[in-house]
Parts: sequence; C-alpha cells; structure tokens
Amino acid sequence: MDDSIVTAAMVAIGDELLSGRTKDKNIAHLASMLTAVGIDLKEVRIIGDNEDGIVEAVNALRPRYTYVFTSGGIGPTHDDITADAVSKAFGVPCEHDAGAMEIMGAAYASRNIEFTESRKRMARMPRGATHIRNPVSVAPGFSIGNVHVMAGVPSIFQAMLDNLIPNLRTGEKIQSVTIHCPFGEGRISEPLGAIQDENPETVIGSYPQFDGTNFFTQIVIRGRVPSAIAKAESQVRKMLDEFGVGNAEP
Amino acid sequence: MDDSIVTAAMVAIGDELLSGRTKDKNIAHLASMLTAVGIDLKEVRIIGDNEDGIVEAVNALRPRYTYVFTSGGIGPTHDDITADAVSKAFGVPCEHDAGAMEIMGAAYASRNIEFTESRKRMARMPRGATHIRNPVSVAPGFSIGNVHVMAGVPSIFQAMLDNLIPNLRTGEKIQSVTIHCPFGEGRISEPLGAIQDENPETVIGSYPQFDGTNFFTQIVIRGRVPSAIAKAESQVRKMLDEFGVGNAEP
Repeated sequence: MDDSIVTAAMVAIGDELLSGRTKDKNIAHLASMLTAVGIDLKEVRIIGDNEDGIVEAVNALRPRYTYVFTSGGIGPTHDDITADAVSKAFGVPCEHDAGAMEIMGAAYASRNIEFTESRKRMARMPRGATHIRNPVSVAPGFSIGNVHVMAGVPSIFQAMLDNLIPNLRTGEKIQSVTIHCPFGEGRISEPLGAIQDENPETVIGSYPQFDGTNFFTQIVIRGRVPSAIAKAESQVRKMLDEFGVGNAEP
Repeated sequence: MDDSIVTAAMVAIGDELLSGRTKDKNIAHLASMLTAVGIDLKEVRIIGDNEDGIVEAVNALRPRYTYVFTSGGIGPTHDDITADAVSKAFGVPCEHDAGAMEIMGAAYASRNIEFTESRKRMARMPRGATHIRNPVSVAPGFSIGNVHVMAGVPSIFQAMLDNLIPNLRTGEKIQSVTIHCPFGEGRISEPLGAIQDENPETVIGSYPQFDGTNFFTQIVIRGRVPSAIAKAESQVRKMLDEFGVGNAEP
C-alpha cells in the first residue's frame, strides 16, 4: 500500500447512540480532525454496550486499517466494558495500570475525594497499553497496537484526540474544492460522470440538497494533487457555465 | 429468537459522511423512529461510496437482523452506486423498474422536464424489489428481502421511512425512564451495578455529561416490562436519596 496513505476506522460504543437518546458528536469531530491531518476515515461502526460486539468490531477493523479509534464505555459503571472487550480482542489481561493508578490517585487525593474501587475501574486497561492523556477528568484513555480507546463524553473525547494526534503517522492531506450548483443532480449527472472519468486522480462527489422547495447540489472535488483538482474544477465550472444558472430540477 | 423482539441494522452510505463534510442526520432519526415502534437498532455502519464495501456490509448484516436500512447513494450521478451494490449483494440484475419508470416519467412530463438517461438511473433497482414511496422527489426507494434502501437527503429519507414503517413488523416497545443524578458516575457506580444485577429484566445505562465545570449523570432504565422498570426506578431513587444531592465529582 502507498505509504503516504494512512487509513482509519472508528467504533462508537454505546446503547444510547442506538436508541436515539444521544446524538453522537464524536464521529463528525473525528472525521474532520482526521481529514485535516491527512488520515482517511474509511468506516465507522456504531455498536451497543456488548462485549462480543466490541471484540468482533475491533478485530474486524484493526487488520484492515492503519488505525482504529473507539469512543465510549471507559467510565466507572457496570455498562463500561470497553477496556475488558479490547483486552479480550488482543488476548491480554485487563488490569489496573500502575501509572494510571498513580496519576488518578494523586488527582483524587488533591481534591479530597475517595479513590474508590469503582473509580479504580477507570485505571484498568489491557496489559501493555500506553496512556492517552485526559486533561479534563484525569482517567486516561489508552492505545494498544493500532487501537486507540477514548471516552464518549465529547469534551473528553476531543481533548484525548488532541493529545493523541501528534503521535500518529499522518498522510498526505486530501484537499478539496466545493462548487455550488444551483440546480438538482439530474441535469448534471451525465457531464459530471464524464468529467470524473477524465480525472481519475480526483474523486468527484455530488451532494444533493433540498430546502423544502428547490433542489441544489454541492459538487466536491477531492484529491492529493493540486493541479489535478484545478483541472477538474475548471471543467466543472465550464460545464456549469454552459448550463447557465438554471431552474431547480431534481 | 423471541418473536416479540425485532432487530435492525443501518448502513449509512457516503464519502461525505466520512470526510466530516456532512454531519449525518439520518442515523439519529432512524434510531428514534425505530425505538418508538419497538424495533431494536443494534448496529450502524457508515461506509463510503464503494461497491465492495456496500456489498460486504449488506451481506454481513442482513442475516443477523430482522431488517437492514440503508441511506444514500440512490441519486442520478456516477457516485450513486447503492442500487448496483445491493443488486450484487442479492445476486440479481439491477435494471430499470417498469413501475418506477412510469411514475417518474409521468412526474417529469407533468413538469415539462426531460426524462434523461441519468434521471432514468434513479428508476434502477434490483429485480424483484418493491417500491418505497417518495413524496418529495418522486424517485422511489426500494425494498428487497429484508433490506430497505432509502435516500440520503434527510427530508427524503424521513418521508420514505414514514411510508415504510407501517409495512414493517414491529416489536414490543421498549420503555424507558430517565433519572437525573447531579454528580458524576464515580460515586454511584457500585450501588448502580448492584441494582442492575438485581433487575435483570431491565437495562440500566449511565451517561456522564460534563458542562465544562461539573459532571452530572443521566441514569436511564430501559425494559419491556413496566413493573420491572418501576422496581428498578424506585431502587435508583432510593440510592440517590441516600447520597443526598452532592457535589460534582467525576
């Protein structure tokens, strides 16, 4: 595989994401952050608080992509089973990490809060894992192999990701140009398909939107070669000029 | 499997969902709608505009769940490949559906819009599929086997889903009670775990939130037996009373 291509998958864990109770915020955040550093997010799975499901997803994805990121399930309660599941996926024991016990013990002591058994649960991770620092609530996330395990609370997920990204291998950035098309896809799909065929170094996406009355379309040209993007862009703009600015037609 | 349990998975299709360009709105909508009618959404996969990826996801999920729902990739452009991919997943030809050609042809004719080859692309579906009516922009979604293929534009996805749901087998509704806990999970995790153990007919979730200063927690009790939910709820409320209303401690 091309060394400049770095790929990733995400596993978002939590029954609340599947019941409609909580609208996930971490997927779109991770997608944007990875795109910004040139890592291609290829697949996301949302699964419930179910050990077998987590093991299966992690083991399906980690051989396929450079990195796997997880969110959720690393708190102190009975439904927080991600550390156990990821340990099982790697076939290693899940145990209290000495370093995590130390920093969490110190943080709780400084605030006169008892470091209970259930709080100590948050120091558990697969043997051999390294920490992902958590400046918000101390209990660290962890990395094992190419799997990076972070919290589900968005502010903590984001802080952990900020601390993790500098340690990752990043790829050549994908650049993109968005061109507004004031009518629906139906009129442009043939010439746009031809432009895609002529510009294999780019990926041209066409995203219809509907404002309740009219359709319009965002045409997005993505690629890693700026001159290739520019060539495709000029062809798309020429095509739109030839249409003129038209009516909305789906 | 218990006949009153109806399960589902979703495949959300589109490069734009993985690049961070578009924040998906269909997953949370589907989750809420299915929960409302007693269908348990068990798993969601977000994948790109990639035929092999769609085939793999559909074929992995359709034997495991009562229903599979897809969103995206059924427009007229070159990156709309869901109909082809789902046909391939079922091993049947993807062809222009006579009924879809008729209703789309009539709709375009009534608006004096040419029914071009690319618009006709939207009438393609796997042989043997049935329509999911689209009151917004006419081109129908489709159902084949237990797989239901809908548009990615949220207003169209929602309208198609509204037309589809009355035709689905629905399960016994899951009911839930949410209890606000004004402090973090660390203090309640042990007694809450014990309450979960005593109440196996319910699933008790604990969802920490952080407002930038303090942690608080939503405790959600879910189940299909109202008396079981009520029993667990009274135990949780008793536990919180014993704590009093405390400080925020993560």
